[in-house]
Amino acid sequence: MLYQGAPLSDVQARVLLDNEEHWITLVADGHEGRWSRYRAVLPWCQTGPSTRYCFRVYENGRPRWLGADGEHRHTPAEAAHFRATRTPVLPDWAYRQVAYQIFPDRYARSEHAPGVRHDTYYGSWPMPVQQLDWHAPSDPGLGQSSFHGGDLPGIRARLDHLQSLGVTTLYLTPVFASGSNHRYDTEDYHRVDPALGGDAALVDLSAALKARGMRLVLDAVLNHTSANHPWFNRWGIHPGIGAWQSQDSPWAGWYARNAQGEPVYWKGHSSLPVLDYAHPAVADAMITGLDSVLRRWLRPPVAIDGWRLDAIHMLGEGAGAKRNAHWLQRIRDVVKAERPDALVIGEHFWEATPWLQGDQEDAAMNYWGFTQPLWQWLAEHDLAGRPAPLDTRDFARWLDRARAALPHDIACGMWNLIDSHDTVRLFTLLGSDEAAVRCALTLQFCYPGVPCLYYGDEIGLEGGPDPDNRRCFPWDPAQWRHGVLDHVRQLAALRHSRPELQQGACQTLASGDDWIALARYNVEAATLLVLNRGAQTSVWVPLDRLPRGVDEWRSVFGHMLEGDKTGVQLRLGPMDAAVFCS
Amino acid sequence: MLYQGAPLSDVQARVLLDNEEHWITLVADGHEGRWSRYRAVLPWCQTGPSTRYCFRVYENGRPRWLGADGEHRHTPAEAAHFRATRTPVLPDWAYRQVAYQIFPDRYARSEHAPGVRHDTYYGSWPMPVQQLDWHAPSDPGLGQSSFHGGDLPGIRARLDHLQSLGVTTLYLTPVFASGSNHRYDTEDYHRVDPALGGDAALVDLSAALKARGMRLVLDAVLNHTSANHPWFNRWGIHPGIGAWQSQDSPWAGWYARNAQGEPVYWKGHSSLPVLDYAHPAVADAMITGLDSVLRRWLRPPVAIDGWRLDAIHMLGEGAGAKRNAHWLQRIRDVVKAERPDALVIGEHFWEATPWLQGDQEDAAMNYWGFTQPLWQWLAEHDLAGRPAPLDTRDFARWLDRARAALPHDIACGMWNLIDSHDTVRLFTLLGSDEAAVRCALTLQFCYPGVPCLYYGDEIGLEGGPDPDNRRCFPWDPAQWRHGVLDHVRQLAALRHSRPELQQGACQTLASGDDWIALARYNVEAATLLVLNRGAQTSVWVPLDRLPRGVDEWRSVFGHMLEGDKTGVQLRLGPMDAAVFCS
Repeated sequence: MLYQGAPLSDVQARVLLDNEEHWITLVADGHEGRWSRYRAVLPWCQTGPSTRYCFRVYENGRPRWLGADGEHRHTPAEAAHFRATRTPVLPDWAYRQVAYQIFPDRYARSEHAPGVRHDTYYGSWPMPVQQLDWHAPSDPGLGQSSFHGGDLPGIRARLDHLQSLGVTTLYLTPVFASGSNHRYDTEDYHRVDPALGGDAALVDLSAALKARGMRLVLDAVLNHTSANHPWFNRWGIHPGIGAWQSQDSPWAGWYARNAQGEPVYWKGHSSLPVLDYAHPAVADAMITGLDSVLRRWLRPPVAIDGWRLDAIHMLGEGAGAKRNAHWLQRIRDVVKAERPDALVIGEHFWEATPWLQGDQEDAAMNYWGFTQPLWQWLAEHDLAGRPAPLDTRDFARWLDRARAALPHDIACGMWNLIDSHDTVRLFTLLGSDEAAVRCALTLQFCYPGVPCLYYGDEIGLEGGPDPDNRRCFPWDPAQWRHGVLDHVRQLAALRHSRPELQQGACQTLASGDDWIALARYNVEAATLLVLNRGAQTSVWVPLDRLPRGVDEWRSVFGHMLEGDKTGVQLRLGPMDAAVFCS
Repeated sequence: MLYQGAPLSDVQARVLLDNEEHWITLVADGHEGRWSRYRAVLPWCQTGPSTRYCFRVYENGRPRWLGADGEHRHTPAEAAHFRATRTPVLPDWAYRQVAYQIFPDRYARSEHAPGVRHDTYYGSWPMPVQQLDWHAPSDPGLGQSSFHGGDLPGIRARLDHLQSLGVTTLYLTPVFASGSNHRYDTEDYHRVDPALGGDAALVDLSAALKARGMRLVLDAVLNHTSANHPWFNRWGIHPGIGAWQSQDSPWAGWYARNAQGEPVYWKGHSSLPVLDYAHPAVADAMITGLDSVLRRWLRPPVAIDGWRLDAIHMLGEGAGAKRNAHWLQRIRDVVKAERPDALVIGEHFWEATPWLQGDQEDAAMNYWGFTQPLWQWLAEHDLAGRPAPLDTRDFARWLDRARAALPHDIACGMWNLIDSHDTVRLFTLLGSDEAAVRCALTLQFCYPGVPCLYYGDEIGLEGGPDPDNRRCFPWDPAQWRHGVLDHVRQLAALRHSRPELQQGACQTLASGDDWIALARYNVEAATLLVLNRGAQTSVWVPLDRLPRGVDEWRSVFGHMLEGDKTGVQLRLGPMDAAVFCS
C-alpha cells in the first residue's frame, strides 16, 4: 500500500478468510517520491475464487479506510473490498488484444460468395428470404430474413485492413447454420452456415488468422435454439419428430415448458425456444459431453481461441435461470479443460459483477462498466436511446465502482465497446461529431479492459436503430472518415506499445464539470488521459494521486502541457481527448 | 411508489427476472397529502429467493432513480436494488418480539443449583475448575474454568422480571454439556449440562415460557466441538477412540485436517476442533439426520422456537467454509421442515448480507447494520475497542445502506443489540452515562429489527473486557440503575403497542452534526425518533420525506414539540433521545 502523509505506526489490512475477518499488519518499506510504501504478505482465501481485503490507517486518532472504490469513513462493505484471485483467471494473451466484432452477413462478400440457397426463413413464422445488393439500404420491413451476402472468405480477404488497424482478435457473431441474417437462432451447432462458406471457410479463416498471430472468438448461443432446429422442428420440415410436434419426440424434454406444458421462448420470441438444462442430455450436447458444442470448435482444425457467451445469465434449468452459476462454472471448467488458454467472455447487457469473481467467466462485454456510463456522459442518452445526461462526478464514480467490483485482472480483461449490433452506433448518436467519437475511442483504448471495435467504428460508419446499425461495410475508402481511422490506428499502436494500458492500475486524478483526468500506470511507466466533453478549456491536473514520478510527459496527439511534479496544466479543445505518456 | 412533485407521465420499475431487466410501467393512482401514488404489479423472480427492483422517473428530461438506499443518478447497481421475497422468510411472530440474551452461568442461581461436579476442565489443556461465589468478582486469570453457578431453574425463577421488562423471547447461550463456563465447546449435544439442571430443567423452563406465551431460542454451535467431545477425545478420558487419538477412530474423518493431516482448530483454539461437513456422517449428526442435533431440540418436550447459529459463516467442508451456502440452505430446510414457524438467526460479527437474501437465514445478530455504527457514532469506538469516531452523515448512510442490502422483512427481523458477551458493555464504554445508554436503547427499540437485550443492559450493568462483560446479575435492586430500567420498560411497552415499529418502513428525515431524525411508519401510524449525541440543541425536522400526514404528535418521553405539516421544532437535552407517536 502507498500512502502520502506523516509516518504511520498502525497500518492494517483487513482480509476475509472463510468469511471471517483477519488483520494483517503492514510494515514500512521505503519510499517512492512523496509516497511511503507499506507492505505485508496476505494469506489467500481457500474457500472462494477471490480473496477480499481493504486497508485501515489512523490519522489523528481517526480511522481512514481504503476500499477498492476509494476512501471510506468506516469498514467498507464486502462489496467494496479489493479482490484478488489466487490463480490467473484469464489467459495471459487476453490482456494484449484489440478485438473487432464482425456481423458476418454485413462485413465483406467474397467473389464467389455462395449466397443463401433457401427461399424461406423459418422463424416465428415462415418468411420469404430476400437477397439484397451490398449497397442496398437496410429495410426494417424485411427484418431478419434479408441477406446482403457477406461471408467468411470475404472476411479473410480483409485481414490486411484489420491488421493495419492493430486488431489482434476477431470476434464473429454467430456463424452456425441458421435461417436468419443474425444467426442467433441456430439450426445446427455443428455446421458453419453454407451461406458463409461452410466449415471449410471457417477452417481457412482460422488458419489465416493463426498465420498472422491473430485470435478468433466465436459466439455461443447456448440458451435457446431456433424453432426450426430439428430438435424442436416447429415447421415440420425436418424428417424427425421434434419437441414442438409431439411429447413422443426424443427431444421432448430438452426444452423448457411453462406450467401449461407449452414451450417457453426467449423473451417471448417464438423463434427461440429455450433449452432446459435440467435435462442431462441438453447439458451433455451443449456443454459437458465429450463432443459438446463448446468442445467441438475449440478443437482442431478450427481451434478457436475463445467463446463469447450470448445472454448467458439467462441460461439455466426449467423455464428460467435456475442454477445459472452452476452451469457457468461447468462451462468454464469444460472450456479450460479442453484448452487451458481459451477465453470465456460473457455477454450481459447490464451489470455482470456476479459472473466475474473468478469462478465463472474470464471477463464480459462491458456494457455496464464502460458503454453505459460513456454514452450517458458523452451522448447524454442511455443504451435504449432515452435521455440520460450524467454529471462528470457521477460518471467518474460509476466507472470507479464498476471496476472496484471486479478483481483487477478481470477488470483489465473486460471487453470495452462503444457500440454493437445491439445498439445504435455511437457516432450517429453523437450527431456524426468526429471529435466526440474520437474522445470515446480514446477512452476505449486507454481504459482498463480490451477495446472491442464494432466493424465500421474505425471509419465512422453511421447507423441508427436495428437494422440500420448493421449496415454493410463500405469498402470504398472515399466513404470513410479518415480522421477517425487514423485516430484508431494511433490508439491501437499506443495500446500495443504501453503495458500500463494493458494491465496497469487506473486512478481518477481529477475532474471538472465537463472534463476528467485518469492515469494508467505500472511500476515502470504511466499514461495520462484527459477527456473534455465541453467547450475549449484550460485545466490543471494535480498529480498527487499518481504514486510515481514522471520526468517528462510526451503528448500522443500534440497537446501542449506545462507543469511539474505536483501537477500539469493543459489546454483542451472543445470535445477533445489528450493523452500523454511517461 | 410515492412521489412529490409535478405529475409524471413516465414512471417505470426496473425488475430483474432471470438476471435480465424488465420494465414495468407504474400508473398514477391517487394522492396522499402532498404525495402522488404510482402503482404497478411486479412479477416475481422465479429463479432466486428475492425479486430485485428499482424505480425511474423523468424530471426535466433527466432520469432520477430510486434504489433501496435512496436516490441514484443512474441505474443503481444490483446491490442497491430493492428486494422482496415471494414467500415469508421469517415466521410471523418473530417481528413482535423483544429478545433477551442470557449467559446461563451468570444470570441466576436457584436454591438447589447443582454446581459443577467435576474438578477439571478439559479444553486446550486440563485446568482446575473453580466454583466462585455469586458476588465474587470475575478473575481474568481463571479463564473459562471458573463457574458462578447460574442454572436454568434460576432463570425460570426470574421470568417475572423478564416479563415485567416486556421481554418475549429468551435466547440462551449454549446449555449443552460442556466443561467451560461459556459452553461454546460442546461435549454432548444431546444432553443439557447437569450443572445447569440437566434436561429436566430445560423441559421445565421451556414449559414455563410457553405458559407465559414466551419464546425460547438456543445457541447451536455446529462448526466445531470441544476437544473433549468423545468424537475427538483429546484427553482420552472417554472410553472410545477419538479422532485425535487414532486414524482408526470411527470419527477419524469427522474433523477437518490440514495438509499435514493435523486437526484444524477454530481460530487456532486447540480446545475447538473444526468439524468437516464433507463427511456425510457429520452433516447427518448435526443437521440432516432424522435425529440430528438441530431437529432434536425443536421437538417436544423442549420444542424450542428457534436456533441462533454460532459463527455460522465459517461452517463448511474441509478446513474452511467451503460450500457454506449449501449447508446454510440445508440448515434452513431442516429447521423449517421440522417446525415451519421456527426461527433461524445467524451470528456474524461482521456483514451478514450474503446469508440474508431469503434462502439461508431468517435474520442475524445485527452487529454490522446496527451495533457497529451505533458504537462508532455514540461511543466513538469500534467493537474491538479502537477509536473510531463517525460523522452523523456517515452514520446515517451506514444504517441506510446496511438495511437496503436486505429484503425489508428480513431487515425487520434482525436482532439489534447494543452489546453482548463478545463485546464490552456499552454502558461502561460510555463512561456510565445513563443519558447516553438511554439514547442507544431508544434506537435499539425503535429501529427496524428486534431489540435483543444482553442480560443486565436493563439495569445499567457495568462490564469491561471478557470476563468482566459476563458479570453475575446483581439481583439486589439497590444496585440497579432504575432510570435505565424504567426507560427499557417504557421502550418495550412502546414497541409492543406500535406495529410501525415492528414491521413499518424506515426513513431518515434529517440530520445535523450531532443529531439524526428517523421515522417509522405504516399506512396507519407513524413514530418519529430524534437522537442527539451533542450538547443541548433545538432542531427543525422537516417532514417532507414522511409520506403520510400526522395530525398530532404525542411525546413518549415528555419532549415539547411545535410545528405543522411541513416539519416540527423540538428542543433536545445533551445526549438525549426524543420519541413522538402519531
